[in-house]
Amino acid sequence: MTTAEENALLQSVRHLHLGADGRSVVILDQTLLPNQERFLTLRTAEEFIEALTLLRVRGAPAIGAFAGYAAYCLAAELLDAPGACPGPRFQADFNAACAKLSAARPTAVNLSWALGRMRRAAEAHPEDPLSALYAECRAIQLEDIAMCRAIGEHGLALLKDGDAVLTHCNAGELAASRYGTALAPILLGAERGLHFSVYADETRPLLQGARLTCYELVRAGVPVTLLCDNMAATVLRQGLVQACFVGCDRIAANGDAANKIGTGGLAVLAHHYGVPFYVLGPTSSIDLSLPTGESIPIEQRDPEEVRSLYYAQPMAPAGVRGFNPAFDIASHTLISGIVTEKGVCRPPYTKSLAALFGR
Amino acid sequence: MTTAEENALLQSVRHLHLGADGRSVVILDQTLLPNQERFLTLRTAEEFIEALTLLRVRGAPAIGAFAGYAAYCLAAELLDAPGACPGPRFQADFNAACAKLSAARPTAVNLSWALGRMRRAAEAHPEDPLSALYAECRAIQLEDIAMCRAIGEHGLALLKDGDAVLTHCNAGELAASRYGTALAPILLGAERGLHFSVYADETRPLLQGARLTCYELVRAGVPVTLLCDNMAATVLRQGLVQACFVGCDRIAANGDAANKIGTGGLAVLAHHYGVPFYVLGPTSSIDLSLPTGESIPIEQRDPEEVRSLYYAQPMAPAGVRGFNPAFDIASHTLISGIVTEKGVCRPPYTKSLAALFGR
Repeated sequence: MTTAEENALLQSVRHLHLGADGRSVVILDQTLLPNQERFLTLRTAEEFIEALTLLRVRGAPAIGAFAGYAAYCLAAELLDAPGACPGPRFQADFNAACAKLSAARPTAVNLSWALGRMRRAAEAHPEDPLSALYAECRAIQLEDIAMCRAIGEHGLALLKDGDAVLTHCNAGELAASRYGTALAPILLGAERGLHFSVYADETRPLLQGARLTCYELVRAGVPVTLLCDNMAATVLRQGLVQACFVGCDRIAANGDAANKIGTGGLAVLAHHYGVPFYVLGPTSSIDLSLPTGESIPIEQRDPEEVRSLYYAQPMAPAGVRGFNPAFDIASHTLISGIVTEKGVCRPPYTKSLAALFGR
Repeated sequence: MTTAEENALLQSVRHLHLGADGRSVVILDQTLLPNQERFLTLRTAEEFIEALTLLRVRGAPAIGAFAGYAAYCLAAELLDAPGACPGPRFQADFNAACAKLSAARPTAVNLSWALGRMRRAAEAHPEDPLSALYAECRAIQLEDIAMCRAIGEHGLALLKDGDAVLTHCNAGELAASRYGTALAPILLGAERGLHFSVYADETRPLLQGARLTCYELVRAGVPVTLLCDNMAATVLRQGLVQACFVGCDRIAANGDAANKIGTGGLAVLAHHYGVPFYVLGPTSSIDLSLPTGESIPIEQRDPEEVRSLYYAQPMAPAGVRGFNPAFDIASHTLISGIVTEKGVCRPPYTKSLAALFGR
């Protein structure tokens, strides 16, 4: 790819790119979607940290790309200061800035991973760290786009023109840069003129399906039907979809997949009604050190998210107890295939996943 | 039961009873729960019709009891008019008033059923219709209380002290007069000092679980945990409940049960995780003329209920398609037992349900 082609590709990511001044990051504020499309131009460490903690930018791959650009901007700011120059002092200040960014979402693996890449890029080029950082942050996003496109290609092979797919939560391009993971086959297919349609679970409590998946599919011109999570069984029973495509946060060695709460139950329903259930994600989400899904820790979030609807007043009386696991596990016995950038793995997953890593 | 005991029992139904003046119906406005407890005193045909159409009063048994009291008040108003007296003129006016009430919710079987009882009571006592109507509207509610109590007794036999139960939607006393159906064993057990707890699906889109089930269980002192519908699989997988208790709108001859959307999927999940799944309802909801659930018509409601959250702004962009079936079917193959006021039916339901009716 030429530099001009790379520039064009990176600038096509309207919801997450380097600002035209080369000193800012432009993002689409995901907390306001779908009712408001507000683009923010962020420049300071405080603004970057706020965007991460308030989930204005979210989704593992998107967080990685954002962190790369944010670190580049902070490095440029350090070197723009009067009298500043590359050297040990700069490197120490830059590392400290990265550490502050990294603390904004301590459990987001992609955040510390991307910042680690940026720190090492600066260290490897002490004479001209800024050029190295510029190349590195672009590389992070370009690699993500290529990986999502590869997942899309492999997923496309599982569909035929005209198919409808059921999805849960948001694993589309807003969660990454282009294409996303679970939605990559759909969005890539739409680019090529194929006619897919999507049934989108609204995904309580935070409604990422209603707010984000519907938003990006409507924009992409893909027909999308919104349903409450408890309606998925009816969609499956009536044969309205040919497959389920979901993303994943972590996959254990046996193929058990952790993803947004509701995914595991959806896998049971799809299995019951004979609809293929595919998990799509990068190989970086496969963790062979975990034998089964039982070893994956499940984040418990504030029960107030359940009691008080997004944007609304309390929907249940004071006095109710809370239950708000953020994720659940889709058992490997219910998963038809795991789609990564390297291809589609089939059961038994203990073998097919290990083979991805040459074991 | 003495008249004094009947009076005490009827007056204990604080959310639905005849007003102290004998010319009004007092209801708790269910549309405002749980954030506001507003009792309404309704007197005119317009007020009765509005309460029905806006779902200020809802739930099949509650609608029946409400209709009885409303018809009584309208009859009293007709006879209170100067120069009015029992006779053909009164009967014609009363029948017309009942027809107007009945049209408020044409598909609510209990509405036309209760109004039919009231019309026939007046016709059978042309010399003193008001006394007959007073006895009849009280009888409708007293019979409902006895029926719910009987369902509760039979359901209690399925539980042991300390059990936790998962429920969906609201089939508690707000939907009836006392006890309700699915919650009858819990509420009856609580009266007797047993220690049950409940996990309540919030039940999107209209959140009857969050708003109504949680409200009445908190008031009854029963520990209740609210969950999003997509979290039920996690509750079942973790063994947090010993049974599922749900209500029903209609039961076919083979045991297929139609109930609030999400019930059918919950039955699949309970079956998968080995948790008993019980459907509780009066024998009046069993329709032996329907061979299977496929014959039960499913109401499709306004998709805007999904797109716009209860009380809130739109949660999905314009352009999404709608999907909003109000009910689904729990297959008889997934139902452990059907609990009616006459006892617990077990598979095969074609035999056990028919036996209830002496066939």
